[in-house]
Amino acid sequence: MTGTLYGVGLGPGDPDLITLKAARLIAAAKVVAYPALPGTDSLARAIAAGLIPEGVAELVIEVPMTQARAPAQAAYDTGAARIAEALDAGHDVVMLCEGDPLFYGSFMYIHARLSPRYDVEVIPGVTSISAASARAGLPLAARNEVTAVIPAPLDDATLRKRMEAADSFTILKLGRHIGRVRALLDDLGLADRARYVERATLAAERILPLAEAPDPAPYFSLILVTKGADPWL
Amino acid sequence: MTGTLYGVGLGPGDPDLITLKAARLIAAAKVVAYPALPGTDSLARAIAAGLIPEGVAELVIEVPMTQARAPAQAAYDTGAARIAEALDAGHDVVMLCEGDPLFYGSFMYIHARLSPRYDVEVIPGVTSISAASARAGLPLAARNEVTAVIPAPLDDATLRKRMEAADSFTILKLGRHIGRVRALLDDLGLADRARYVERATLAAERILPLAEAPDPAPYFSLILVTKGADPWL
Ligand SMILES: C[S@@+](CC[C@H](N)C(=O)[O-])C[C@H]1O[C@@H](n2cnc3c(N)ncnc32)[C@H](O)[C@@H]1O
Ligand SMILES: C[S@@+](CC[C@H](N)C(=O)[O-])C[C@H]1O[C@@H](n2cnc3c(N)ncnc32)[C@H](O)[C@@H]1O
Repeated sequence: MTGTLYGVGLGPGDPDLITLKAARLIAAAKVVAYPALPGTDSLARAIAAGLIPEGVAELVIEVPMTQARAPAQAAYDTGAARIAEALDAGHDVVMLCEGDPLFYGSFMYIHARLSPRYDVEVIPGVTSISAASARAGLPLAARNEVTAVIPAPLDDATLRKRMEAADSFTILKLGRHIGRVRALLDDLGLADRARYVERATLAAERILPLAEAPDPAPYFSLILVTKGADPWL
Repeated sequence: MTGTLYGVGLGPGDPDLITLKAARLIAAAKVVAYPALPGTDSLARAIAAGLIPEGVAELVIEVPMTQARAPAQAAYDTGAARIAEALDAGHDVVMLCEGDPLFYGSFMYIHARLSPRYDVEVIPGVTSISAASARAGLPLAARNEVTAVIPAPLDDATLRKRMEAADSFTILKLGRHIGRVRALLDDLGLADRARYVERATLAAERILPLAEAPDPAPYFSLILVTKGADPWL
C-alpha cells in the first residue's frame, strides 16, 4: 500500500496557532518533509518542533533561490521524487508548511507533481495576513470591501495599479523592496494608513508605523494598508 | 478585576481546523458570545459545540440584517454593551467567530467598540478561502501573483474592474448575485477557470464547476478563479 501525502499548514509562527488536525498528524508522523532555502533554518520545522516525535525520518526539500524556470522545475522534481520514494515504501509523509500550504507556498509545486499519482490531502492553516491583522487589531475588509495581496517584488507601475484597485491590501515579500513600496505609499497618500508587521505571533514580533520600518526589511514581514474607516464602526 | 475579551477564530467549519489556542480558550470559557442573524442558527456556535463546557453562559449577539448605518451601529452598540457587562463583572468572554475573526467578520465591530476600554485579544483562524483552496487542490497565488477577495454584492462595473486587476480572485457572499457573477466571468473568458465551493470542510461540502453551481447559491459558498498556470508547475 502506498502512503498518503499531507500538506500541513502550521500557521504564522506561534505553535499554538497550529490546528488540531495538523497537530495530530504531526504527532503521529513517521516521515516529515519541509522546505528550506539552501543554508538557512526552516521556519516550518521550528514551528512544529515541539510536536515532532523522536526518531522520525526528515526529508529536507530544497527550495530554489532562482527566478529561472528550468532549475526551479528541476529542484521541485527532485523534492517530489524523494517524497514519492517514501510514499511508494508505504509511509505517509507529513509536509510541514509555514502559514497556509497553498498560499504563496512551495507546497503547491509538490502538490502539482504528486496529486495525479498519490493521495494528497491539504490541511489549510492560518495565514500570515490573518495573523498580522489580529496582532495589529486591524480588520482588512468589511462588508463589500475588496482586499488584495500584493508581492513587493513587482515593478512600480504594477504595484501602483494593484494598490489603487482595492479598498485594502497587504504587501508581502518586502526585503530590499520596502523603500520602493514606501515611496509609492507616500505618493498615493497612504503612508499614514500603513502598518508594518514583522514576525507576527513569534517572540520577536514587531508592529510599527511604516515610517519606523527597517530597510531592508526581514523576510518575515509585511505591510497592511486600509484606505478608509468603516461607517459602522 | 475586569475580564478579557477573546475574539476566537474557529476556521471554516470542520472543528478539527480550530487552532490549539482557540480550543483551549473555548474549553476553559465561563462566558461565550457568538453572532447570529435573527432567526437562524449560528454556524460559529455549531463549529465550537463539542468544546463548549457544560453550564457556560451564552450571549447571542444579533447581527443586523440591514445595510443602513444607524440601525447597524445600534445593534453592535447593544451587543458590545452586553459583553462589557460580563467583562465588568470580572468574567473573561470568548467570542466565537467563523473563519478568521477580522476577515469580513462582525467581530470587528465589537473589537472597535471595546478595545479602547478593555483587554481584547484576537486569535486568528483559518479563512474560508484557505479552506476552499485546500479542498479544491487549487493554489490561489504563487511567487509574485496578486490575489484579490471580491464580495459579489458589488455592482457589475466594479466587479469587472476588480476581477481584471488581479491574477486570481475569490468571490464571497454569492447568494442571489451568482447569476451576475457567472455572466461577468463568461464575458471575461474566465468561466472555465472558476471553481464553485460550497460549505468547505463541512459534511455537506460540494465542489463543482461553475456551470453546475446552484442559483441562488447558499450563504456559505464562494468561487475561486485563477487566470493562468504557474510556469514552475
Ligand atoms: C512565501 S510567502 C508564504 C506565506 C505563507 N504561506 C502564509 O500563509 O502566510 C512568505 C511571505 O509571507 C509573509 N510572512 C510569512 N510569515 C510571516 C510572519 N510570521 N510575519 C510577517 N510576515 C510573514 C512575508 O511577507 C513573507 O515574505
Ligand atoms: C461574512 S463572510 C465571513 C468570512 C469568514 N470570517 C472567513 O474568515 O472566511 C461570509 C462569506 O464567507 C464565505 N464562507 C464562509 N465560510 C465558508 C465555507 N465553509 N465554505 C464556503 N464559503 C464560506 C462565503 O462566501 C460567505 O458568504
